[in-house]
Amino acid sequence: MDADSIKPVTIGVAGGTGSGKTTVAQRLVELIGKERIAYIPHDAYYHGLNKMPRTAGEIVNFDHPDALDTPLLIEHLTQLRTGQPVHIPVYDFVNHSRSAQTNRIEPHPIILVEGILIFADAQLRSLLDVRIFVDTDADIRFIRRLERDISERGRSMESVIHQYLESVRPMHLEFVEPSKRYAHLIIPEGGFNTVAIGMVADFIRDKMRIRE
Amino acid sequence: MDADSIKPVTIGVAGGTGSGKTTVAQRLVELIGKERIAYIPHDAYYHGLNKMPRTAGEIVNFDHPDALDTPLLIEHLTQLRTGQPVHIPVYDFVNHSRSAQTNRIEPHPIILVEGILIFADAQLRSLLDVRIFVDTDADIRFIRRLERDISERGRSMESVIHQYLESVRPMHLEFVEPSKRYAHLIIPEGGFNTVAIGMVADFIRDKMRIRE
Repeated sequence: MDADSIKPVTIGVAGGTGSGKTTVAQRLVELIGKERIAYIPHDAYYHGLNKMPRTAGEIVNFDHPDALDTPLLIEHLTQLRTGQPVHIPVYDFVNHSRSAQTNRIEPHPIILVEGILIFADAQLRSLLDVRIFVDTDADIRFIRRLERDISERGRSMESVIHQYLESVRPMHLEFVEPSKRYAHLIIPEGGFNTVAIGMVADFIRDKMRIRE
Repeated sequence: MDADSIKPVTIGVAGGTGSGKTTVAQRLVELIGKERIAYIPHDAYYHGLNKMPRTAGEIVNFDHPDALDTPLLIEHLTQLRTGQPVHIPVYDFVNHSRSAQTNRIEPHPIILVEGILIFADAQLRSLLDVRIFVDTDADIRFIRRLERDISERGRSMESVIHQYLESVRPMHLEFVEPSKRYAHLIIPEGGFNTVAIGMVADFIRDKMRIRE
């Protein structure tokens, strides 16, 4: 195979917190086969705590575009698209810093990028051949986030609500929701929408059949 | 082929007036091949003028669900799904009545149903395997409708605006927009969205490959 024949297809899966976008991305990986997909979560690219933006109330603002090292993701995506391996950062969510480790990602036929803000940046967006937005009602998204943060992260209800109102929700309205307009495809209801997920998986398999 | 092997896939394409849903449907027919698709527009099922609902201002309300003989469409769709041909009505848009003619539609591997209100009826919805909603901003949809009604139907700007405010827009908000939630897939921007149309076409071809 020459370089041309292995030019990967890049797929972006975006959507608000709790939308089910991770479930959609994981189902796609299962349906297509792990060995064919390089999976890159945008939140591996969080800055260290000292470089993070803060809200007016001085909460760390994980939902603002400036919280993420998007230029590095763009660099990596550009390299993968030309067939070069990359070393993506590993974020340490306990100490809120980039760890010393990196994850080596080999070029794959499909590159799947996931994150709430991946369509909010024009340059990143232009590198994504297929842009999928997972769209779920805000109340359902909040309930999922509340349940997850309490059970998996040991957070209190009050702290989840405070962060949601202080940063998650305003950032969603300012950056995530408007970026939906750049999607090629909007999938309602996330991971439960087997018709849509099946359709995207078929499309990807079809692309690979053409290549193989 | 026995009856089972030819059970068709039913695809519904909905969206507001001027959304580009007809362009999406036509592009799908071109990409899949006319000979494989039975194309059924919901607006072939308009009632005659005497049975049409009217707005408070006594305008004929073409955008209300009661304007359409949906039970007949449901009957036809049920017949086509079991491999029987149907005779769909031919609506005479000049005299606003059902003409004496009908159109014989043979069973096809793919049945494509199109209309603004096809997801608003629970029973009709349940007969559609893949529900696609073409979503375009309201201002763009109005501009398209205005241009079309002036150039193709010889209407005045004033009469288009009057009908839009009196029936098209309120019916859209009451029936069409809420039915979007039943879509499996939302396609922004209609006919110009080649990525999404290509994806749906791939999916349909894939379904047919499995069958053939």
